[in-house]
Amino acid sequence: MNINQKNHSLGVARSVIREIFEYGNSRAAVVGRENVYDFSLGNPSVPSPACIDETIARLVKEDTCAIHSYTSAQGAPATRKSIADNINARFGETATMDDIYITCGAAASLTITLHAVCNQGDRVIAFAPFFPEYKVFSEGAGAEFTIVPPSSDFQINFEELEKVLDSKTKAVIINSPNNPSGAVLTEATIIRLANTLKEKSEQFGHPIYLISDEPYRELVYDPSVKVPYVTRYYDNTFVCYSYSKSLSLPGERIGYIFVCNRMENNRDAYAAVCGAGRMLGFVCAPSLMQKVISENQNAVADLETYKLNRDLLYNALTEYGYDCIRPDGAFYLFVKSPEPDAKEFCKKAMALDLLLVPSDSFGCEGYIRISYCVSTDMIKRSLPLFKKLMDENY
Amino acid sequence: MNINQKNHSLGVARSVIREIFEYGNSRAAVVGRENVYDFSLGNPSVPSPACIDETIARLVKEDTCAIHSYTSAQGAPATRKSIADNINARFGETATMDDIYITCGAAASLTITLHAVCNQGDRVIAFAPFFPEYKVFSEGAGAEFTIVPPSSDFQINFEELEKVLDSKTKAVIINSPNNPSGAVLTEATIIRLANTLKEKSEQFGHPIYLISDEPYRELVYDPSVKVPYVTRYYDNTFVCYSYSKSLSLPGERIGYIFVCNRMENNRDAYAAVCGAGRMLGFVCAPSLMQKVISENQNAVADLETYKLNRDLLYNALTEYGYDCIRPDGAFYLFVKSPEPDAKEFCKKAMALDLLLVPSDSFGCEGYIRISYCVSTDMIKRSLPLFKKLMDENY
Repeated sequence: MNINQKNHSLGVARSVIREIFEYGNSRAAVVGRENVYDFSLGNPSVPSPACIDETIARLVKEDTCAIHSYTSAQGAPATRKSIADNINARFGETATMDDIYITCGAAASLTITLHAVCNQGDRVIAFAPFFPEYKVFSEGAGAEFTIVPPSSDFQINFEELEKVLDSKTKAVIINSPNNPSGAVLTEATIIRLANTLKEKSEQFGHPIYLISDEPYRELVYDPSVKVPYVTRYYDNTFVCYSYSKSLSLPGERIGYIFVCNRMENNRDAYAAVCGAGRMLGFVCAPSLMQKVISENQNAVADLETYKLNRDLLYNALTEYGYDCIRPDGAFYLFVKSPEPDAKEFCKKAMALDLLLVPSDSFGCEGYIRISYCVSTDMIKRSLPLFKKLMDENY
Repeated sequence: MNINQKNHSLGVARSVIREIFEYGNSRAAVVGRENVYDFSLGNPSVPSPACIDETIARLVKEDTCAIHSYTSAQGAPATRKSIADNINARFGETATMDDIYITCGAAASLTITLHAVCNQGDRVIAFAPFFPEYKVFSEGAGAEFTIVPPSSDFQINFEELEKVLDSKTKAVIINSPNNPSGAVLTEATIIRLANTLKEKSEQFGHPIYLISDEPYRELVYDPSVKVPYVTRYYDNTFVCYSYSKSLSLPGERIGYIFVCNRMENNRDAYAAVCGAGRMLGFVCAPSLMQKVISENQNAVADLETYKLNRDLLYNALTEYGYDCIRPDGAFYLFVKSPEPDAKEFCKKAMALDLLLVPSDSFGCEGYIRISYCVSTDMIKRSLPLFKKLMDENY
């Protein structure tokens, strides 16, 4: 083939989630949108806070040349400062605007960071279950992608981690609150992870970077649940943030990388981030959205709907006999498949127009992911189908 | 070094243009903004057409969830259809929405296309003078970057091209209207290029792709100047378009790739584009801007200011004894340096706070690039300095 075979394959093999989503659209055309119960996608269902669209409407009445202009590649200084200030105020950090690199969303934060640190043949480690694109992004940066199997509580399986941490290991990716399990890594887990990585970095004579993918940071539903700020425990950390979920702006592609300023050779690491962004073709993050987030650092979409959805779905499903951990964050319910092959179970659900995602593509078998960023009404109407599915088959 | 050395270097070595721009900012703080004559950057100086901000203000009052949602990775179907319709109406093409992939601007169009077609060790050819990032993007996609020296009229030096076209050649990049020369490739040039590439593709047994980088397509100032639409002459063409200059939206990162549907194995090529976009972390182009360009396909920023600037500057400089080709398009004047070393000349200009870019970083020596996307007033005030520079030194 004359073109790039690997990227061709990535374009042909759509993600399983996208396949199910497209199937839902075609079914809706046949049986009606109200008769399809699509729990496949992680597309926020609550609107952005009103201040977002108000800010946009006001900004475009101001100096249009300035608003739509290129910003510097790492982002507008005022926006970077507001992000640094926010991190410092909330997490007791000492970030400056020169530690912040604004990106076109979480995926860009990850690809830029991975290209900044990885050389051909390095190892990148992630913990199952994980967002499937981690593999695509890591391999795209020339790294070998290694999966650590899950622990029973979806914290970290340290025994398995120790087996794969080797001198080739350049980075470890964590994602808390987690897609797809909804689990939040506890402070004890983060401390143990930090200690393990410190010890291994010393042993191998080079830092192992921690890449903390945090699009769901704000999506926790109980005041008792804390999401530890990772740089406070481990200096060699890149925080990859996105406003997609917290502000319900997934299509606008806006997020950032925080390069911890206590990282070894942090100025070099930040320069490599700038260089990777340049090489990948990002130029700068969308300028209007940079202004918008700068002015709305403390805004969060209405999370009460997600909490309501979680409680409704979790309570009903466990009552029907499903086995799942109560998710502390994100907007996914990770349910043990009532039969060993989760794909088979999802097929039975699909026959009822109940669209669920089997866990196989998240690097662990035997579970179902249910996205509850949907209308509460659809959840209510779907509950008899979940009951029927369980009662008639298991 | 523990991080990626190549991307680190790209982050440390800022572009020459950016260096000059930053110098201008620091000088402005000392001598006053009105006393610095900054001709370094290609940042549009005329505002977006009013319809753009009106559309934005209206859209954010509509269904906010829909407007800020993820679109499909290749772009919203309605937007892709409006782009295809526009190409067909203006250039007699037969594009469908399935031939269009919407991107985060021209740089993304280029990196995605290059990663879609290139394998490690392929050759990518560009013609001097060229936009310096072509080298960065090509090498980032694993290719060897080869420069064809210019012809005296800034068309194509075919003799030199034939010398470097070999079996390793995967793609040739053209850019018309050209940054930095302002030259427009004539129909005769495009026909000859197409014939050369057809012949060589046949000889080597695989297509050589033509990548047409077209951010300046709409920026031509005389009705007699035509910018040929490249797919009409050569099927194996990727058109990389951006709205940055035509709509004065450079910060918003919105453009597209048109994969010519008569390209050999065009479905595979399109799939490779989708895969490359996924691997690089683009997800989708900014959703609000996709809606905006969908509704404003025929809008163009006010180009009269640029025409006025070009005529003012060209007429004055040639009168003072400078030697330059009258640019047909883009917003750059490419002036022969009055002394062999353009960098030395630019230093003398800089001493007068006249900020010009030497041509060395565009792959050809002995010229100066003057961006005239600035205020007409600044040009008028700068003219005595251009005169003084010539009179006192040459």
